[in-house]
Amino acid sequence: MNMALTQMLRKCVREAAQRPALRQGAEVWTYGDLHERSARLAAALHAHGLQAGDRVGMLAPNGLLYPLFMWATWWAGGVINPVNVRWSVAEIAYALDDSQTRILLVDEPFVATAQALRGVSTSLQTLIYCGSGVTPEGMLSLRELWATHAPAQDHGGRDGDLAMIMYTGGTTGKSKGVMLSHANLYVATLGSIAMSPRPMHGRALMVAPLFHIAALGTSLRMLRQQAQQVFLPGFDEGAVLEAIEACGITDMFLVPTMIRRVIDHPDFARRDTSSMRSITYGAAAIDPTLLERAMTAFPQVQFSQAYGMTELSPTITMLTPEEHLPNPKRAQRLRSAGRPMLIAEVRVVDEQDRELQVGQVGEICARGPMVMMGYWNLPELTAEALRGGWMHTGDAGYFDEDGFLYVVDRIKDMVVSGGENVYSAEVESVVTQLHEVSQCAIIGVPDARWGERVHAVIVPAAGQTVTLEAIAAHCHQHIAGYKCPRSMEIVEALPLSAAGKVLKNVLRAPHWQGQGKGVA
Amino acid sequence: MNMALTQMLRKCVREAAQRPALRQGAEVWTYGDLHERSARLAAALHAHGLQAGDRVGMLAPNGLLYPLFMWATWWAGGVINPVNVRWSVAEIAYALDDSQTRILLVDEPFVATAQALRGVSTSLQTLIYCGSGVTPEGMLSLRELWATHAPAQDHGGRDGDLAMIMYTGGTTGKSKGVMLSHANLYVATLGSIAMSPRPMHGRALMVAPLFHIAALGTSLRMLRQQAQQVFLPGFDEGAVLEAIEACGITDMFLVPTMIRRVIDHPDFARRDTSSMRSITYGAAAIDPTLLERAMTAFPQVQFSQAYGMTELSPTITMLTPEEHLPNPKRAQRLRSAGRPMLIAEVRVVDEQDRELQVGQVGEICARGPMVMMGYWNLPELTAEALRGGWMHTGDAGYFDEDGFLYVVDRIKDMVVSGGENVYSAEVESVVTQLHEVSQCAIIGVPDARWGERVHAVIVPAAGQTVTLEAIAAHCHQHIAGYKCPRSMEIVEALPLSAAGKVLKNVLRAPHWQGQGKGVA
Repeated sequence: MNMALTQMLRKCVREAAQRPALRQGAEVWTYGDLHERSARLAAALHAHGLQAGDRVGMLAPNGLLYPLFMWATWWAGGVINPVNVRWSVAEIAYALDDSQTRILLVDEPFVATAQALRGVSTSLQTLIYCGSGVTPEGMLSLRELWATHAPAQDHGGRDGDLAMIMYTGGTTGKSKGVMLSHANLYVATLGSIAMSPRPMHGRALMVAPLFHIAALGTSLRMLRQQAQQVFLPGFDEGAVLEAIEACGITDMFLVPTMIRRVIDHPDFARRDTSSMRSITYGAAAIDPTLLERAMTAFPQVQFSQAYGMTELSPTITMLTPEEHLPNPKRAQRLRSAGRPMLIAEVRVVDEQDRELQVGQVGEICARGPMVMMGYWNLPELTAEALRGGWMHTGDAGYFDEDGFLYVVDRIKDMVVSGGENVYSAEVESVVTQLHEVSQCAIIGVPDARWGERVHAVIVPAAGQTVTLEAIAAHCHQHIAGYKCPRSMEIVEALPLSAAGKVLKNVLRAPHWQGQGKGVA
Repeated sequence: MNMALTQMLRKCVREAAQRPALRQGAEVWTYGDLHERSARLAAALHAHGLQAGDRVGMLAPNGLLYPLFMWATWWAGGVINPVNVRWSVAEIAYALDDSQTRILLVDEPFVATAQALRGVSTSLQTLIYCGSGVTPEGMLSLRELWATHAPAQDHGGRDGDLAMIMYTGGTTGKSKGVMLSHANLYVATLGSIAMSPRPMHGRALMVAPLFHIAALGTSLRMLRQQAQQVFLPGFDEGAVLEAIEACGITDMFLVPTMIRRVIDHPDFARRDTSSMRSITYGAAAIDPTLLERAMTAFPQVQFSQAYGMTELSPTITMLTPEEHLPNPKRAQRLRSAGRPMLIAEVRVVDEQDRELQVGQVGEICARGPMVMMGYWNLPELTAEALRGGWMHTGDAGYFDEDGFLYVVDRIKDMVVSGGENVYSAEVESVVTQLHEVSQCAIIGVPDARWGERVHAVIVPAAGQTVTLEAIAAHCHQHIAGYKCPRSMEIVEALPLSAAGKVLKNVLRAPHWQGQGKGVA
């Protein structure tokens, strides 16, 4: 058994060398092109000192250079470090230095960032400029490296070899390097196709950022099915609709907000989207009304929901297209994250890791070949996350009697008030029903009587006034009394992580100063 | 990553404990039953000295005891040795002793065989009687072991651990123990589902013998999809039709001759087969006319063809249901073995292992995580089969311009006559068109002028006379002159291997005495 990811690229060259692999604007690379350019860059990486297992970073927007980065690094026997380009220079430097990344590929828009990094990063040695302009001082030129290096042989990896370190800021604390092996990503890709099959040779529109695992995993799945990947540099709903029509797109991965923006776009009705076959959504909960609207807007499309996290390569449950179709339990199931993947064992446990029964809320844990190798250089955190052989997701959830999983909150964001668990996500969804509320984050704050008190952090809608009384009155109509906010603060905006998640630790911090909880 | 096969059973218990897993006649086991009985037997195996990695054998017809044998052994951390019950006592003893199998499960019909084995086998120590009668002298009783052992914890295996030694007589020489790991079977199962997806929770009729990889692999795939497996003790076309109707069967694996017998059965028209959803066929070439008839007989069924061998866990190419549907190249493609699996690299090479071009016939080779660990205790044969990192199948074939693979012959059965390659399968299919011919085997025999001469071994149809002149005249109408038989012998029956393949080495032997070729 050898589950080197490069097997996929070798197969593409052998079986589909002439097929278009990547497309960005007018530029199209066949699988033959991708292979040759990856193998030439791999040779250049070797020439510049890359050894098996060394990390290579990338600063680029979505585009065909991104797969080049992935496949050249793997072809050379290296490890990819897909840097989040939304991070600050200091955050990027942390991800590079923590993982001792010496080689960094830099696309045009990030030349200034790369130059700033040179003054900060202690590990960075070799910068490869991938733009089409004049090569900046002190950087190598990708085009010159291609021209001066013959394609390397495949140095691949073997099953348990590290393939990627992906830094996740998550919603708490400093970022951690999640280590995924070749076998992790190899089997996860296959498991995903087995759960939600699509025909070979599709055309996928890649709009979610490739430095996140959801899009990167989609890219791997598309390559395994010898599909064409069409890249847009960023998310723009008009451009998405245009690309679907122009390229005959069949598949997309979208986060819920992207789905909303696409179907709400004024051009939607006049664009031809009939080529679409599948939409996978995930990374955040979807509003059932939005899902219904999306299924009406794309009547011929198979919808799948994926739930997971970077540490799980990433998917552990899926709500399959079949389960989106009419059935007596559909309304309930559309609120779930689906059932476990064929490759995943999933269970819900209490604080002592005892397995809970149907309907009981606890921490969601997963086991199987998709579980990460660990966090880079963080053995204690790794041991804690993987205790008992199960990955502890930090998500709270429960199973229903048919084995569907419902995710209710991050464990750390649950509020324990008067001995009752309050799931912030539930309260937030009720509060944001009020038209005067734009956004809401529910946190627990210290309370002498209740231990913790349900506290609402509110961004009012433009020109609106929000009162605690109005919120409490509305909540009392929909949810139990102990779940209703008892205090409130008004803010202009919620603090967000690079991945767009609300940083509740930042919101909690001032309330919990000197009292332990909050910042963790 | 841990690809222990037992993960599948753990998932079944967690997700589908109450679902029927196995059915034989009136007896039904749920997944909970299978798990508990396997875990109890695993504890008993430990109590009787089984250590991790030890082999356990089974003598049984198809039935629900077969999965019990597989899952109990794996649950105990052992290695299954699924003995071919069609073999002689001496052949079975060889497979047991060569692999040092000390524990053997014995179902009712094979008690006498087991007793005979005791006088011959040097490794056999513990016999477990699985029948429902009186436990024979010197054997343990499965039912008593169940009653006296609490379920064991899962001892599973890890990725590269040996999971099975399967002895294949093949068509040449003495049998070899093919070693497959947990990861081999884990990934092969997943790859198979990804290529040819079926809904979860189907009902499969298991009629092909489970001591062959095609049926054993089907059983694994069905368990992974939490399907119900319905067993018939042997193949009987009337019983198959009855079971489809009675059990609402959705899926079957059949070899071509089984398909023919099912659709030709007088009961076919009056049986309700509308529950059927998929038929996978393989293990031998299918006559296109038969395939057309089968597709007409089961109009709602998705047909897949699988090609491979035990050493490849077993499938490396598949002709998918989509490719069976009307398309301009359908007639040609139905004669192919399909395209490579998502997990398999497949190539065709010459005698120096140089890759050949489209249309050129050479040896079919495969690489990927489905390739066996090797042959048990046969390092030279292993190195030879796996030279250059590719499994050499011994099959001759070629790719067409669309990447479909055509298998033309076993390499060893090709006849090289006057410098031209003659593929015995092609000539055989022409000769058997003659109504006076029942069966035909084409072999090469020594010839002073041509090096080898095309020689036909003929079993005439009942009451018919066959002449070389008639054969040659018919062949000259359909194939090139150098392919036509130049000599002939008449036999009453062709010698067959335990797997039902013609033993051409036996046919060649008398012609090649003292001349090297033939018996190899």
